[in-house]
Amino acid sequence: MSLLKTVICVLWAVCVGQTAGSQNGPNIIIMLMDDMGWGDLGVFGEPSKETPNLDLMTAQGMLFPNFYTANPLCSPSRAALLTGRLPVRNGFYTTNAHARNAYTPQEIVGGISQDEILLPELLKKKDYVSKIIGKWHLGHRTQYLPLKHGFDEWLGSPNCHFGPYNNSVRPNIPVYNNSEMTGRYYEEFEINVKTGESNLTQIYLKEGLDFISQQAMAQRPFFLYWAPDATHAPVYASERFLGKSQRGRYGDAVMELDDSIGQILAHLVSLGIQNNTLVFFTSDNGAAVMSGPHQSGSNGPFLCGKETTFEGGMREPAIAWWPGRIPAGTVSYQLGSVMDLFSTSLSVAGVLPPDDRVIDGLDLSPVLFNNSLLDRPIFYYRGNQMMAVRIGQYKAHYWTWSNSWEEFNMGINFCPGQEVPGVTTHTPEEHTMQPLIFHLGHDPGERYPISVQSKEYRDVHRQVTAVVEKHLKDLIPGMPQLNMCDLAVMNWSPPGCERLGKCLKPPQSNPWKCDWPH
Amino acid sequence: MSLLKTVICVLWAVCVGQTAGSQNGPNIIIMLMDDMGWGDLGVFGEPSKETPNLDLMTAQGMLFPNFYTANPLCSPSRAALLTGRLPVRNGFYTTNAHARNAYTPQEIVGGISQDEILLPELLKKKDYVSKIIGKWHLGHRTQYLPLKHGFDEWLGSPNCHFGPYNNSVRPNIPVYNNSEMTGRYYEEFEINVKTGESNLTQIYLKEGLDFISQQAMAQRPFFLYWAPDATHAPVYASERFLGKSQRGRYGDAVMELDDSIGQILAHLVSLGIQNNTLVFFTSDNGAAVMSGPHQSGSNGPFLCGKETTFEGGMREPAIAWWPGRIPAGTVSYQLGSVMDLFSTSLSVAGVLPPDDRVIDGLDLSPVLFNNSLLDRPIFYYRGNQMMAVRIGQYKAHYWTWSNSWEEFNMGINFCPGQEVPGVTTHTPEEHTMQPLIFHLGHDPGERYPISVQSKEYRDVHRQVTAVVEKHLKDLIPGMPQLNMCDLAVMNWSPPGCERLGKCLKPPQSNPWKCDWPH
Repeated sequence: MSLLKTVICVLWAVCVGQTAGSQNGPNIIIMLMDDMGWGDLGVFGEPSKETPNLDLMTAQGMLFPNFYTANPLCSPSRAALLTGRLPVRNGFYTTNAHARNAYTPQEIVGGISQDEILLPELLKKKDYVSKIIGKWHLGHRTQYLPLKHGFDEWLGSPNCHFGPYNNSVRPNIPVYNNSEMTGRYYEEFEINVKTGESNLTQIYLKEGLDFISQQAMAQRPFFLYWAPDATHAPVYASERFLGKSQRGRYGDAVMELDDSIGQILAHLVSLGIQNNTLVFFTSDNGAAVMSGPHQSGSNGPFLCGKETTFEGGMREPAIAWWPGRIPAGTVSYQLGSVMDLFSTSLSVAGVLPPDDRVIDGLDLSPVLFNNSLLDRPIFYYRGNQMMAVRIGQYKAHYWTWSNSWEEFNMGINFCPGQEVPGVTTHTPEEHTMQPLIFHLGHDPGERYPISVQSKEYRDVHRQVTAVVEKHLKDLIPGMPQLNMCDLAVMNWSPPGCERLGKCLKPPQSNPWKCDWPH
Repeated sequence: MSLLKTVICVLWAVCVGQTAGSQNGPNIIIMLMDDMGWGDLGVFGEPSKETPNLDLMTAQGMLFPNFYTANPLCSPSRAALLTGRLPVRNGFYTTNAHARNAYTPQEIVGGISQDEILLPELLKKKDYVSKIIGKWHLGHRTQYLPLKHGFDEWLGSPNCHFGPYNNSVRPNIPVYNNSEMTGRYYEEFEINVKTGESNLTQIYLKEGLDFISQQAMAQRPFFLYWAPDATHAPVYASERFLGKSQRGRYGDAVMELDDSIGQILAHLVSLGIQNNTLVFFTSDNGAAVMSGPHQSGSNGPFLCGKETTFEGGMREPAIAWWPGRIPAGTVSYQLGSVMDLFSTSLSVAGVLPPDDRVIDGLDLSPVLFNNSLLDRPIFYYRGNQMMAVRIGQYKAHYWTWSNSWEEFNMGINFCPGQEVPGVTTHTPEEHTMQPLIFHLGHDPGERYPISVQSKEYRDVHRQVTAVVEKHLKDLIPGMPQLNMCDLAVMNWSPPGCERLGKCLKPPQSNPWKCDWPH
């Protein structure tokens, strides 16, 4: 750097901002919440209006009321985001039974296939430094971990933060620092299930701010995948936020995440790199309404929640933010998907997507920068079954299912307080010959199927049939990765356990076909 | 006006704004929507986000997520707004049966009592000119009309715009211009029930803009009660808006009202009187969800709708706007009521409320100007029965009822798609000894009654019991005005019908006790 330039750049932040802007691809931050519902944001009508930072992010960016996950459950949703492909293609599903939600508990044998190409692997072509902070959920065995799949750094955990466990029966979930464990939940990383107190969001916030500072200082383009899990049961918040929300503990967690997001955006501004950073906020699936009012968020006016292919299960809060590039205070009616974050990130980074496989994600650049509208369907999958499809305002259900009578009669309710006869069915109901069709503009709550006698029904049915036939004809399912379970593969002895003296002895291998009840 | 002053005031608008601001009480505009639900505004999470003007009004004003009507039905709600008193006090209820919603169809004999003092009567003390535009609904017989109760001007109708009727059996509803009819719905004032086209909102908009201009020109303080009815079934919109919404005809009506509200606010600004005008937007009751997706709005995440005392029936969208006085972009968690508009309007106008009767409205000035929080309960009435009460975040149901099995089995559903066992009951269920208690922050959808075994329940029950006992002990119900019906009192020959040649011959008087089925 010349003396003159050094002198001019007395304001380091300005300097970084300018050079980063002129030389590198834009930074990319994907903020993925865990089980947060569409209705949990003030801007999406949560009555307590306790997300001022997300509401401000919206006012400064673009809101997507029609944004979807690729699966109503965490692992497949996250695999889809990072591969740009439907779980039925990338293998994050099961064939053990029909239409079952499968994920990656620690007894799962599988994980993300070596054949899949993840977003951070591709971003390497443009010298991006990639970090994941928080929940991975694409497999916890060594070959499946983030640093084997393109990420340069990681602080977080491979599985959900369930526990505490008795380590002799079931190991507590490890927390990794890059490729080695640095402790376990409920041991080095406290979560007080009784009080709901944990500092994890603060840890993840600090880690994010530090990473951003470091890359800005080094003038390297970065990809930050910020995936905190405070809104997933058992929900938690740090002391400063506990008891502060009108909504209880779940709301405390939302408030802390909202505050953290505000700090991250402010940090970008303070570093002067906000005009060179795309930030996208969304969630992995609908609110887990089966968990009751203390451990679950809100899906606003939508039907049911997590685990289901009704709107409450798959429509997600979504905000894009890039000052100077994305017009402030705009609403896009684009049908979007978490898989689009793969394609859009590649596009803004100037990297071509793989041409040897089907990519389901769309490049949303024309939407973000020109508020264009791109024609595309949304497919709603549950395991190996395409349950529903949306084209335009219309959604056609080919299969309906909430959860089984057995579960329901035990008090497990995927649609508490809601019941639409013939729609929220407790047995898997096939409607392939005559799908249930809803107009989501007129009827966002999926309460009024359009009469099969109407011209509207026949017209939509014809259009949707063509879309579905094309989709299914071209579909080559990937090898299912979520079929086998084995207690021996649990997190007994993760890499780095020796150094910490935290290795546990696994039992004999005794694999079985995982039981996915819903 | 001196020559000098005339010269200075080359900009008439600026001139008006300054003098109006310095000499008179502030102008007051109450915008009362008809059957619009809490969830119908973008800012309250309507997924189509089609209310840019109301959302902007929110950004420039104060949002009230906890604002209530005094009754889940139009007439009692409107009587409460204008008297500052619960319907059970001001007589807008029935004793024909228990807990029945009663209103003012054109066969009603009664109306607003001569003993009640309405807001515009009181504002006369400070020389306010008062106009109602739109729906009155406080009785259609001559002695009950607006110009007999303090309003100086009126364009609108005394009843709902149902029809068209065969005038030999049932007269079409008249539209008044001040104290005389100027035509009838479906005759001079077209509403095409088939296409949904009507220019009424445009007529009401123009009338509002003209009234504002005239008063500003004359430098008189004014009270405008703007009460359009486009979102009440049969919903309508003018040609420019028909088919424009993603939500169908109901959404078209909302878009036109939103556009009109934007024009009214812009008009205040263009006249330079925005800093001297309090504007309050709200609705008369929850969305009429029993009317299905084409004629009904949304109550967002709340339970049931119009006619019920669940949150969907009584929580209303509410925005206060007064640039320079009410801080922009604020949210107030105050428990508010339409009755507060009476007390608050008097307060800002500098008029004392009547001291010879109970006033249920609160003066919200400290809330509007300082974002204070005032402690107060909300009572949820259905006819002569206090069904529920809210204190702080807690709501206690003393009675629950959606609608009767008879109606429900005929397909009339007050809670479509929703069912909470033991809560959305189809017979009136008394819980007086052990009310159902909900925490509306944790559980805005009223799905999870708090366990009666818990300390939380006992604590809340104690507090709520004291509030209810005090309320009922002091309550002196007014003379019920909505008990008697008679075909002879219908709008056969309203004042002014002779001039128009539109008088119809009434049948013999044959009064009966009105039947209020729910």
